[in-house]
Amino acid sequence: MHIMIIGASGMIGSKLTARVLEKGVNGEIPDQLTLIDLTACPVPKGMTATIKSLALDLTKDGSCRKLAEFRPDIVFFLAAVVSSAAEENFEKAFQINVYAVLTLLEDFRETDVRPKFVFSSSLAVYGPPFPDKVPEDLILRPISSYGTQKAMSEFMISDYTRKGFVDGLSLRLPTIVVRPSQPNAAASGFLSGIIREPLAGLTAKLPVPSETMVWIASPEIAVESLLLAAGLSRSDLGNTTVINLRGLSISVAEMIETLISVAGQSAASLIIPEENSAVYNIVRSWPYNFETKTAKKFGFPQDAEFRAIVNQYKSEINV
Amino acid sequence: MHIMIIGASGMIGSKLTARVLEKGVNGEIPDQLTLIDLTACPVPKGMTATIKSLALDLTKDGSCRKLAEFRPDIVFFLAAVVSSAAEENFEKAFQINVYAVLTLLEDFRETDVRPKFVFSSSLAVYGPPFPDKVPEDLILRPISSYGTQKAMSEFMISDYTRKGFVDGLSLRLPTIVVRPSQPNAAASGFLSGIIREPLAGLTAKLPVPSETMVWIASPEIAVESLLLAAGLSRSDLGNTTVINLRGLSISVAEMIETLISVAGQSAASLIIPEENSAVYNIVRSWPYNFETKTAKKFGFPQDAEFRAIVNQYKSEINV
Repeated sequence: MHIMIIGASGMIGSKLTARVLEKGVNGEIPDQLTLIDLTACPVPKGMTATIKSLALDLTKDGSCRKLAEFRPDIVFFLAAVVSSAAEENFEKAFQINVYAVLTLLEDFRETDVRPKFVFSSSLAVYGPPFPDKVPEDLILRPISSYGTQKAMSEFMISDYTRKGFVDGLSLRLPTIVVRPSQPNAAASGFLSGIIREPLAGLTAKLPVPSETMVWIASPEIAVESLLLAAGLSRSDLGNTTVINLRGLSISVAEMIETLISVAGQSAASLIIPEENSAVYNIVRSWPYNFETKTAKKFGFPQDAEFRAIVNQYKSEINV
Repeated sequence: MHIMIIGASGMIGSKLTARVLEKGVNGEIPDQLTLIDLTACPVPKGMTATIKSLALDLTKDGSCRKLAEFRPDIVFFLAAVVSSAAEENFEKAFQINVYAVLTLLEDFRETDVRPKFVFSSSLAVYGPPFPDKVPEDLILRPISSYGTQKAMSEFMISDYTRKGFVDGLSLRLPTIVVRPSQPNAAASGFLSGIIREPLAGLTAKLPVPSETMVWIASPEIAVESLLLAAGLSRSDLGNTTVINLRGLSISVAEMIETLISVAGQSAASLIIPEENSAVYNIVRSWPYNFETKTAKKFGFPQDAEFRAIVNQYKSEINV
């Protein structure tokens, strides 16, 4: 079994790499693993799998064809220009978030490679107005370029799947919290910052009002969900090609209370409210509570509570 | 005012050309009209406008840039690989229905041309299950490549509009009946055939059960709707970037009864039932009744009854 991870250097990509080698898909450990990102990822040592790591810019001519010619059985597509960056750099975001997906799908079709194609999508495909709890059949009304581009790619993957050119499944990930070390360019980045920075004794800006509600999941749950998705067969899935993953619906204030209960009031005092309307306008356009019947039906996991997420993160940085 | 019609040789395109020259947009007759299609359209004579007709394949490099450099004020994008053809020729359909739209939008953005962009979309963006009457916020669930591609283009046009790169409006046209002379490759083509052919004394195949319900509009109403759309300003429209046009919800059996009342039983006897599951599977996946509050609010027109559509067609072919 040959697994390819596109966007393998990212936080989710690197955790997925470790987990794939340790746990496999449906219990099967891959004998080949190909890691793709703009810069080459470090290759884990002492593994039985043949691991290749390639630095590749998917927007360059011929890059996607090269990937197709590796003939992977399972592809994780995690590469993205995320929300705030996509608003600022429209063209680059389109190149990665739509055009690279499109080109890769075409190259798979033309070379008759029909991999399982697990695509990381986002709740940014939704936009207001939405009800308190988003039903699974709510219309997609993205109001960001990132959300628009993810929606377009989802549609494309669904049609390629219907035609039998790939076996695609798009997972709409909640906001991932706590992201370690480096903030990324997502509008939601501060949701990790307000936990990560105070735990390290640093200040963190809070660009939204504390009553803002969000929909989050831990990196571990995201990785387990991606692995589970890769193991679902088309006969399990029927016509399902898009799934809203399970998450926790929580306010920023509750997140801060949890931080206090774990690390004390002094940690919370490092959070500096500084409203940023550009960030707030994006974040408030996202729904924060979802019906996830389909995810439950297929056995996708969920975090138990936010406190466990914070403790898990704390134990990792203390290692 | 410079108007460009892309797909000007088609049935709607040629009727729109005539109507634009006669009636203009918001009462203003264009002083420039540019007609684009794969083969050059005939140029109407005796008009005051400067009319150019160009044969151009939008999928060829540089074609879209050429169009942007004409710096039109209003663009009608009517070019399409339609439903059945799109299922058969996936790649070509994608090139026209998505890639050409995308390239043209990018060329408009890069050359800083910000035209009114009226896009002809389709009810094929919907798919089952749907309620008896489709609400305006129903989720898009296309189950054809044509519907998928139209949905993708709609999303793109909406985002370009939000960003101010074009001033776009997608109109989801009902099935147009009666199409004169040549059947096109749409799965819905028979809906014109069962009126057009018997009126000409020819047989017509009926590939679906007669209880099949459809959503139709006359060519005249489609053209008036396109013209009206071109005249709506962004301040009228607010955030509206997609509109389901008004139509008639009617069964094939009712259409045949109308034919009988206009042309007698002998005409109807020329209709030969011959079920075609490929066609039926596409047509049955389309909704056949819509809420059209938004279209009504902006003053879009509607056919009064099917009998008037048939009589209008009859009067035209008798000329």
